Parts: sequence; C-alpha cells; structure tokens
Amino acid sequence: MSKITTVVGIDIGGTNTVFGFIDKRGKCYYEKSIPTKAEEKAELLFQRLFLEINKAQKKLEKKIEVAGIGIGAPNANYYKGTVENPPNLKWGTVDILKLIKKHTTLPSVITNDANAAALGEMLFGTAKGMKNFIVITLGTGLGSGIVVDGKLVYGADGFAGELGHTIVDPDGRQCGCGRKGCLETYASASGIKRTAFELMASTLTPSRLRKIPFDKLCSKDIYDAARKGDKLALECFDITARILGYKLADTVAHLSPEAIILFGGLVSAGELLIKPVKKYMEENLLNIFKNKVKILPSALMGKNAAVLGAAALIWNELEKKYE
Amino acid sequence: MSKITTVVGIDIGGTNTVFGFIDKRGKCYYEKSIPTKAEEKAELLFQRLFLEINKAQKKLEKKIEVAGIGIGAPNANYYKGTVENPPNLKWGTVDILKLIKKHTTLPSVITNDANAAALGEMLFGTAKGMKNFIVITLGTGLGSGIVVDGKLVYGADGFAGELGHTIVDPDGRQCGCGRKGCLETYASASGIKRTAFELMASTLTPSRLRKIPFDKLCSKDIYDAARKGDKLALECFDITARILGYKLADTVAHLSPEAIILFGGLVSAGELLIKPVKKYMEENLLNIFKNKVKILPSALMGKNAAVLGAAALIWNELEKKYE
Repeated sequence: MSKITTVVGIDIGGTNTVFGFIDKRGKCYYEKSIPTKAEEKAELLFQRLFLEINKAQKKLEKKIEVAGIGIGAPNANYYKGTVENPPNLKWGTVDILKLIKKHTTLPSVITNDANAAALGEMLFGTAKGMKNFIVITLGTGLGSGIVVDGKLVYGADGFAGELGHTIVDPDGRQCGCGRKGCLETYASASGIKRTAFELMASTLTPSRLRKIPFDKLCSKDIYDAARKGDKLALECFDITARILGYKLADTVAHLSPEAIILFGGLVSAGELLIKPVKKYMEENLLNIFKNKVKILPSALMGKNAAVLGAAALIWNELEKKYE
Repeated sequence: MSKITTVVGIDIGGTNTVFGFIDKRGKCYYEKSIPTKAEEKAELLFQRLFLEINKAQKKLEKKIEVAGIGIGAPNANYYKGTVENPPNLKWGTVDILKLIKKHTTLPSVITNDANAAALGEMLFGTAKGMKNFIVITLGTGLGSGIVVDGKLVYGADGFAGELGHTIVDPDGRQCGCGRKGCLETYASASGIKRTAFELMASTLTPSRLRKIPFDKLCSKDIYDAARKGDKLALECFDITARILGYKLADTVAHLSPEAIILFGGLVSAGELLIKPVKKYMEENLLNIFKNKVKILPSALMGKNAAVLGAAALIWNELEKKYE
C-alpha cells in the first residue's frame, strides 16, 4: 500500500504549541500539544517540538510520509522567515526558518496566525472555491488575512492584512500598539468587554454583568447574558457589530471580496454578531457593492483550525511548484 | 525594416475621447482627440472613433503594426467588458467589448481610468519595477488602482479600488454617490474647494479666495493663493493632506504597499500636498509600517497619461499570454 502524503502544521501560541500531520484534504492523522514556555528561548521550543514530531513520525511511518512543514506564529514574516517581537513570547526577533533547518531538510514556510487561518479556510473551510475573500479572526485582538485572486496578500514587506489596526476614532480607546482608536480595541473579545464597561458607566441599564469585575469578565459572559435577553449585553453586540460593519465597508471598497469570513471565540455568538455586522456593513457600502458581499462564519471553528491553517500554508506552497 | 509593434490606447472622457498608438516602451507614434458628444449613443462614438483610428493606421502602416486595443473609461468593468452608468455620459450600461468587435478583431480590454493609470505607472511611470503599490488619482473625484504582486486587483466583481468612497465621517459631507463623508468629498479638487468654503465660513482669516464665487473657484486658485502665502489656502492643503494621510494609513494596514503614487491636477501643488500627506500618514501608521511606504508624484503628469494607461492595460494583457 502506498503511503499517504501529509504535511506537519505547527501552531505556536503564547501558552501551547500544537502540531499535527494533515493530508491534502485536511484530514488529521495525529495531533499533539506541548507547552510553549514563553520564557524560554525559541531554540529550546524547537528542540522539544522536533523531538515530539520525530517520535510521532516514527510511529506513523508505515502509514504516512511528510512533504513539508507549515508554521503559524504571532508576528511571523512570510518573506523573511522570521518572528519579530511576538507580544506573548520573550523571543525578540528570531529567524525561525534558519532554526528549523537544524532539525529538518523538508520545505518549510511560516506566516502569521490570521494568514494561516485564511489559507485554512480556502483549502479546507468556508472559502473553498473562492478566489477573493477576507478572513477576520476575532480573538483577544483582531487579525486578518486577505486573499486576492486565489493568493494571500503579503504586500511589499510581508505584513499586509493588519485590519485590526485600521483606525475607528483617532481619539478613541488606547490600543496595545501604542496608538488610539484601532479597530481591535472595539471589535474583538477584549473590545466587546471594554464596550460593556463603557455602557455600565454611561447608562443606568440594569445588567447581570454589573456583578463581574473587569479582570474576570470575558466575552462568553457577555454572550451568555445576551442570549438570556440582558439589554446591556445585547447592546454590546450591536455596538461591536456597528463598528465592525462600518469598517468592513471600507475594506470592501478596497478589495471587493466575494465574502468576509469571521473566525474566533466571539463568532460563537452566531447570528447575534453576524446578522448586525452584515446589516451595518450594507448600510455603509457604496451602491455598486451592495448585496454582493457575504458575511460567513468559519467552517473550522471547534476543529484544530490553527494547525489546519498552518498545514494549508505549506500545502498551498507545495502546489505552487506543480502549477 | 521590420515594423514597430504598437497598441491603441483609448481614453474615453466626458468631453473628449483621445486615442494614441503606443509602443512597448510608452513611445507615442500618433495621438488624436475627438469630441465624445456625451448625449450621443456609445455606438456612434465608436463609429467615429474607428474611422479615425483606421485612417491613422493607414497613414502609419509602413512603420507600425497594431497588436491590441486598451480602453480606459469611467465605471468600466474589466471582467464584463461593460461600462455601467458612467456619470458624465448618457449611455446607461453598454457592452463595450461587444461594440468594438464590430470594428476590429484585435484583442481588446477595458478598465476604469484609475486602474489604467495604475498600469500606466507600472509600465511607463513612477512604479516601474514595483510589485505592490497604489495609485490615487486626485481629480474632480478620487480614484484608485491597487497593484498586488504585479497584478491589478479587480476583486470578485471587477470593482475593487474605490478608495474615494471609504468613509472619513459618517455624518460628513454629502457625496455624489448618495452617502455622506466619503474620502473624495475631502481629498480631491472639489473636496479642497469645499474645505476652502468651510474655512471661509468658520474662520475670519483674510484670504484672496473670499473674492471668488463658489461656481468659479477651482483648486488651481487655491494652489496659486497658497504659493503666495495665503493662510487660508495653506490651511486648505493642510486639512486635505491630514484627511488623505489619515485614510492612507488604513490602506497601508490593508495592503502594505511599497509606494502610494499620487496623480492629477491637485498633485501639481507638489510638496505643498505630498509632504504633509506623508507626515500625516506616518503619524497614523502602525509601528511595523513606519518609514517604509513612499508617497510619490506620478511621472506621467503633463503627458498623455490616460492614453498611456489604456495602452499599458492591453500591453499588460498581451504579456500575460507569453508568461
């Protein structure tokens, strides 16, 4: 029996690093998570990681072969193969592709999490068959990956697709990036939480959220409250959707995508978020774009989406060679 | 002697339609302008146009041959080959490529003026050798053409690149598109004029512009006044640049271009516009993009830029075939 060709998808997170062996259709043959140990040097993570990968590969070697390695990591640069000052890791700037060469001769590629997510959607998820779309990841921050004509947009320096840092209000909320009013300070898990606290301050609307301190409240609490009809929580979703929809209209004016795909914890709220995002986007669209752009939830949520995205990155690269 | 290969570049404007025979390096062998006659049907314009093109081609036939036809027109759709309700022509929606087939069997392509301008810059102008850049045309409105990885971005429907209709202020100035606060109501020849009138109303700053009625004031008057040190006129440029720079920072966050190239009457103001646009854009850029993105004037101004752009469109297409 001939072996199944897979790639290794690696997702480097602030807490855990997950890898998996993924075939061309997105089927996962093995997956494992190891602690990232944010305080450690990158070298040590990759030593531990490849020890595990090699061990797993040995176990599977009768069944599968490995054609390449794809990595999704925060602040990763596709062109340079580096990770540059990742916010949750004490790495500074590291040449990841160089590091990897110590452990493998397989073709390897790296990009940031949101770009990997976009490729994951294109190969295995909601964007299958689409050529022009955008993936927005709504986590602690707001990440984005842009696909034009079937290809990820990296731009001149590899850092294209930072929609989380387009500006909603130049005098607005303080952002982790050092500026004010960035989209991700409103439209993200932390953004909706800040909106909740703003509403608790500015209105007298009763809400169960008033019992939870800032450090404990999470977006899931707001979602749970909203589902139970909590007015303040419902307004949080409306405000988040209004700001996101308004800015997505600008994105459509740039790129005219077929769809915008939303991914991440906040999207579990489903229609509570997606319906008003669509409504507010439509309200702000130029006539020629109206009723053309779909807002869709990711098809990979609940699955090992980050690993699938990283695998899609290298699959996409391997395919380019045979074009 | 072998003949020189050229293409015909056609620029359809509200008043005049210009065509020229352009070789691969952008050299023009013949150029002529005929009245568009905005009230007439498109069919009649193309009859008159091809009569002239054929006449000219006969004159030149010992020297040149023609390989294709490129057309730049308002509201043109590259995918469909149509022009859809152009604002200054009474055409409705016309299938231009179908119309053209009555007159020629040569490969023909159409796109809007700003996209043609972007290709013109790439083949013959400031963007030579660049792979990721954006052209902004500052005329009566604000048009834009986006190039990613050496290719024009058309998006899902052929209408990508409408930066003039990104929103500066949802409660802002009335726009011709039916909405409010679009970028082109601030950053364009008509936008800077509206800014002048706003400043005349809101301040007591003396200005020579106060002697000119609304219907007569043009952006050149503001430029002339600014060059002579007129404070109000200088402030007009500063406000225009601030708004444009602020929105261009969002565009950079989407696409991370190598350069943004400004084209059009307003750009004749040179450093008076370009320097503050750069300053305000930098102020609003995310750290990773700072000091990377050039703001450059078009190299095609004063030349037959629109015809060169239309020629670049078809040259670009012909080259694709030999890739």
